[in-house]
Amino acid sequence: MGRKRFGNINCGIGQALEVVGDWWSLMIVRDAVFGVRRFGDFEKSLGIAPNILSRRLAHLTETGLFERRRYSTRPPRHEYVLTAKGRDLFPVIAAILAFGNRHMAPQGETVLLAERATERPVAPIMVDAQSLMPLTLQNVALIAGPRATARTFERLAMLRRLRADASATKG
Amino acid sequence: MGRKRFGNINCGIGQALEVVGDWWSLMIVRDAVFGVRRFGDFEKSLGIAPNILSRRLAHLTETGLFERRRYSTRPPRHEYVLTAKGRDLFPVIAAILAFGNRHMAPQGETVLLAERATERPVAPIMVDAQSLMPLTLQNVALIAGPRATARTFERLAMLRRLRADASATKG
Repeated sequence: MGRKRFGNINCGIGQALEVVGDWWSLMIVRDAVFGVRRFGDFEKSLGIAPNILSRRLAHLTETGLFERRRYSTRPPRHEYVLTAKGRDLFPVIAAILAFGNRHMAPQGETVLLAERATERPVAPIMVDAQSLMPLTLQNVALIAGPRATARTFERLAMLRRLRADASATKG
Repeated sequence: MGRKRFGNINCGIGQALEVVGDWWSLMIVRDAVFGVRRFGDFEKSLGIAPNILSRRLAHLTETGLFERRRYSTRPPRHEYVLTAKGRDLFPVIAAILAFGNRHMAPQGETVLLAERATERPVAPIMVDAQSLMPLTLQNVALIAGPRATARTFERLAMLRRLRADASATKG
């Protein structure tokens, strides 16, 4: 699966993908975000093989996205509840759903994200928390963080060079 | 890889994951979002094997996220430019980066997303485009879209039932 390799990729994105695991895991998180907690319900909702589901839930619990809680002692049964870290994947799920609905549903969407209280459909966009400025490809850039490494600076220098070349070509 | 199966999953998320392909493809899109266009630059930035990169770029071009443009005739060379559809993955990338930086960088981030003009770091959050209400797990729900199927209604009914159970347990 090549999961290990992403951790080497020097940025928060590679690290986030490593903790999530794979697409199946993201689908499990999606269900959890919308209220699914029990093995059988994940199984039913996703149509996923029990052995795959069980492996993915174990991984997601290990990486701290889910907490396993016993809800019945006889027979012993557990449910999988998103942790605060797991719940923080909600914007990722919302962004993927918005993309899917925009581009993959030419005949209309099957599900929409809506305000819970009113059921009014919402259109998720990314803004800066402080200024509320919508974030776009045009108005953001990557900069070095406090733990940037030599490799980070190398990559950022490459991106700056490419952007300068692109502007030169346009001009 | 099980890609085909996600298309069957009755929601925009499964469909979006199918078009993206896999984590490698998402890393390629990440680089493209920040300015990479050429095979050699993707290769250098990602440390990815050329045969894997070449397969992923072909998939991403087929699914309409990239456009392949010739930039040199002798020797013939192409670059891979994000289409409007590909650029619309930016919020997904920003959301994953925000999650990774928040949870996977306890010692500090290697890269930060910043306002391009000022290099001031930004904190991406999801809001509704119309009301600017921050979207959270608590205040949104899934509702049936115009192309909801019997299967969609079944899943949504399950989610509503689970939520009612959860409230009952709390109360």
